[in-house]
Amino acid sequence: MTASAAFAMTAAEIAAAVGGTLVPTATSASIADVAVNGIAPLDRATGRDLSFLATSKYAGIFEHSGAGIVLMTADLAASPGQCVTRVIVANPHDALLSLIPRFYRAPVRTAGVHASAVVDSTATIGRDVRIEAHAVIGANVTIGDGVWIGAGCVIDDDVRLGSDVRLFPQVTLYGGTHVGDRVVLHSGVRIGSDGFGFVFRNGAHEKIPHVGRCIIGNDVEIGANCTIDRGSIDDTVIGDGTKIDNLVHIGHNVRIGKLCLLMAQVGIAGSSRIEDGVIFAGQSGMSGHVTVGAGARIAARAGVISDVPAGETWFGFPARPHREALRAAAAAMKLPALMKRLEKLLAKESL
Amino acid sequence: MTASAAFAMTAAEIAAAVGGTLVPTATSASIADVAVNGIAPLDRATGRDLSFLATSKYAGIFEHSGAGIVLMTADLAASPGQCVTRVIVANPHDALLSLIPRFYRAPVRTAGVHASAVVDSTATIGRDVRIEAHAVIGANVTIGDGVWIGAGCVIDDDVRLGSDVRLFPQVTLYGGTHVGDRVVLHSGVRIGSDGFGFVFRNGAHEKIPHVGRCIIGNDVEIGANCTIDRGSIDDTVIGDGTKIDNLVHIGHNVRIGKLCLLMAQVGIAGSSRIEDGVIFAGQSGMSGHVTVGAGARIAARAGVISDVPAGETWFGFPARPHREALRAAAAAMKLPALMKRLEKLLAKESL
Amino acid sequence: MTASAAFAMTAAEIAAAVGGTLVPTATSASIADVAVNGIAPLDRATGRDLSFLATSKYAGIFEHSGAGIVLMTADLAASPGQCVTRVIVANPHDALLSLIPRFYRAPVRTAGVHASAVVDSTATIGRDVRIEAHAVIGANVTIGDGVWIGAGCVIDDDVRLGSDVRLFPQVTLYGGTHVGDRVVLHSGVRIGSDGFGFVFRNGAHEKIPHVGRCIIGNDVEIGANCTIDRGSIDDTVIGDGTKIDNLVHIGHNVRIGKLCLLMAQVGIAGSSRIEDGVIFAGQSGMSGHVTVGAGARIAARAGVISDVPAGETWFGFPARPHREALRAAAAAMKLPALMKRLEKLLAKESL
Repeated sequence: MTASAAFAMTAAEIAAAVGGTLVPTATSASIADVAVNGIAPLDRATGRDLSFLATSKYAGIFEHSGAGIVLMTADLAASPGQCVTRVIVANPHDALLSLIPRFYRAPVRTAGVHASAVVDSTATIGRDVRIEAHAVIGANVTIGDGVWIGAGCVIDDDVRLGSDVRLFPQVTLYGGTHVGDRVVLHSGVRIGSDGFGFVFRNGAHEKIPHVGRCIIGNDVEIGANCTIDRGSIDDTVIGDGTKIDNLVHIGHNVRIGKLCLLMAQVGIAGSSRIEDGVIFAGQSGMSGHVTVGAGARIAARAGVISDVPAGETWFGFPARPHREALRAAAAAMKLPALMKRLEKLLAKESL
Repeated sequence: MTASAAFAMTAAEIAAAVGGTLVPTATSASIADVAVNGIAPLDRATGRDLSFLATSKYAGIFEHSGAGIVLMTADLAASPGQCVTRVIVANPHDALLSLIPRFYRAPVRTAGVHASAVVDSTATIGRDVRIEAHAVIGANVTIGDGVWIGAGCVIDDDVRLGSDVRLFPQVTLYGGTHVGDRVVLHSGVRIGSDGFGFVFRNGAHEKIPHVGRCIIGNDVEIGANCTIDRGSIDDTVIGDGTKIDNLVHIGHNVRIGKLCLLMAQVGIAGSSRIEDGVIFAGQSGMSGHVTVGAGARIAARAGVISDVPAGETWFGFPARPHREALRAAAAAMKLPALMKRLEKLLAKESL
Repeated sequence: MTASAAFAMTAAEIAAAVGGTLVPTATSASIADVAVNGIAPLDRATGRDLSFLATSKYAGIFEHSGAGIVLMTADLAASPGQCVTRVIVANPHDALLSLIPRFYRAPVRTAGVHASAVVDSTATIGRDVRIEAHAVIGANVTIGDGVWIGAGCVIDDDVRLGSDVRLFPQVTLYGGTHVGDRVVLHSGVRIGSDGFGFVFRNGAHEKIPHVGRCIIGNDVEIGANCTIDRGSIDDTVIGDGTKIDNLVHIGHNVRIGKLCLLMAQVGIAGSSRIEDGVIFAGQSGMSGHVTVGAGARIAARAGVISDVPAGETWFGFPARPHREALRAAAAAMKLPALMKRLEKLLAKESL
């Protein structure tokens, strides 16, 4: 991400964009016209940067900040500091996040195939495709328009990539994987590896060959070093618009719906079903052959081992409805204090 | 995995192979002779594919499936559908899995060293070895016959690979690692990295050099993006026939026996011992310097912190025998309902 | 790690270095002069190796070991065995670990840029830098003196590496990452990937561009396949001397202090603060926007969801002070046995 040199916003434009107001003392034309072309935290912002102050904890840093414009809450508006161009808004951090896309554009690089890339002669490559150094493209691969393949990626035979896909360096796509349009795969993602399927026979774990595929929908983003296995017979499917954080594992034959969020280190065991709009928080997991209904939320570190109804929030391990699990946890913490008294009572009652 | 064009099985051969029966109405010679040469799920099967129907949930998809032959349960045998060549069997899914190895063979590619691979002149390479693009082979490496090294793999000095080993793309083997015969290492596996060993001295965490090795037995398979550390003085050892799923971590000096199964995201801390035939389910873990006895099973998300006797199933954290842990969990869920009544009673008894 | 051929230590020197004593029967000059130049476990030690015996469990292996010198405890000093040069010390294993740095030196390889590496013409490369095969160095990258970049690493634009940094093969540094001096990054580490930040708008998860950086301090070591996200606006920072084990995830905007230890598979959610000297044991985690105070210890598999005071040890999920959590766990295990008696009592009391 780099700031586009030509772009800039004035304090007045920023205030309008975030529904904020310039501080009363800053309403003169000269202040409303102050312009910035970048975003930075207070401690390294320059006069050409927009920054934010959301809590008095950082008032000391604000005081000496060289920021050109600062988004801040009303109660901090009078904080001492060099920066006099201040925009008052209820939530400065959210306001700043909402402005980032105006200041920054995804970097654009020239299309072309690097001389060190190895591209099979049977591959079909779209227009405006960039293939970086040491990438390897196998037989019968199809790559859509506007795709950017990072250095060292390995795309095995029969893979299909839609248009405007971005692969960061060192992604591996096993043979036969399908990837939709506008998908982003971060560095170290492995898609289409064999699922963990073995049958114990003749004194050994005999491998079940995996002949299903792995199908990634449109607008999916997958974080660094994630692993997604291919299906055994059926396919593994990730629905449109689903976003996956780093180090997530998805087993064979899993079907994930649209617009789900899976946070870091989540693990989904084979043949699970996750319907649309489900959220799995960090380090949670799910055993195989069960279903999480649409819009359900699975709390951090929870472990799902049975079907979760649509729209519910589940918690703990084995995962249960949130309220029930919290009550049990609270009771468990109170238990030690009761224990001695209970034992005394039971003894007295000869029970 | 691709279907071998020349291979095909008839409905009669399939029925014999899985101990099933052709449906009564399909016993005419013409139907018994229907042949397929691939396997696919109902929704994308063609007349040359075998598929399966195991539950009435998918009867609608079966109705319009173009599959050539379908394995199905007796109670579904009369389901309406285009496909009239039906083989009745108790468990259609298992029957299908058992047939996959007949239809599919691991892909065979030509041996040879790609021009872009960098192979040290002191390496010893066996017969029929394939080394793909951009792989790097260090000094004094020994590679057995029939080995296939994927694109971008890095094999550092003094590594020994047995015969018929398969490395998927971008595997890293640190110097001195030993790998047995017929081992499969999926993309992104790192073997032989330094263990996590530091001594706090002079105000810093001083690194203990790791001079042990990492030794992988025969017929081991290791999933994508796993990490296995080398030993500090002693070796880290993975026994013959053990299979490891994706994103598993194995610490320094760990010794894992034969024929174990470690599922996704398992973590084994340093200097642990795991005897033969142990199963660790997904996201479980084990602290250092303890032993899990032969044939024991560790449940999903369990955390072992003490020795587990052979043959037992342990559950929860800290892990305990399965039945004991389940009873405690059940009691904990009942506790909130009892709590108020208990407190009332204790108050009444002045306890 | 390889033994330096010229180096050797005599039994007398070893005894002095570890504060041990040669066994009484071995005080003759000839025995004190026995020298070794390597370290190995008993079962593969030769006459030129130092080994150790810490428990009678391995006395049988000791008996037939060909080790030149063995460190052992006083109670095992008379164990039968070929090796007569024995050094008695309270903790033979620790003594051996302390000697490893004398015997082994990190391997030294010649500086230079491999012909297959792709280095942008705008990169600034220090003295005595080694860049191995197929590495890719982007525009405006700065690399300090004595840096060793392993095969297949990808270093994107505007990255800054200090001096004496070691990157094992296939590390990816996203654009703008800063790495201090003497940092060690193991194979498959990904630093500076986009954080998991989305806003749900117009029926889709809209990505928040990440314009912060990732800053790694001096003397940091990061294990294989770890992922560390860049900041959204602010930076993600790892403090000097902190060591991180394999498969750890660190979210955007996280600030980790100096001299922390994060063990394998730990996950730190976005915008968390970890002060100096904190330890996170294996598979533990921390949710976003909370703080763990200096010197605190988080137990294995614990999940922190609220601030942890400095110096405390917390345990379980949700994490609580160690003693409190242990008492609750112990009470929970006793509960099932009490449950029936309690229910009987409550029924009797009509409560």
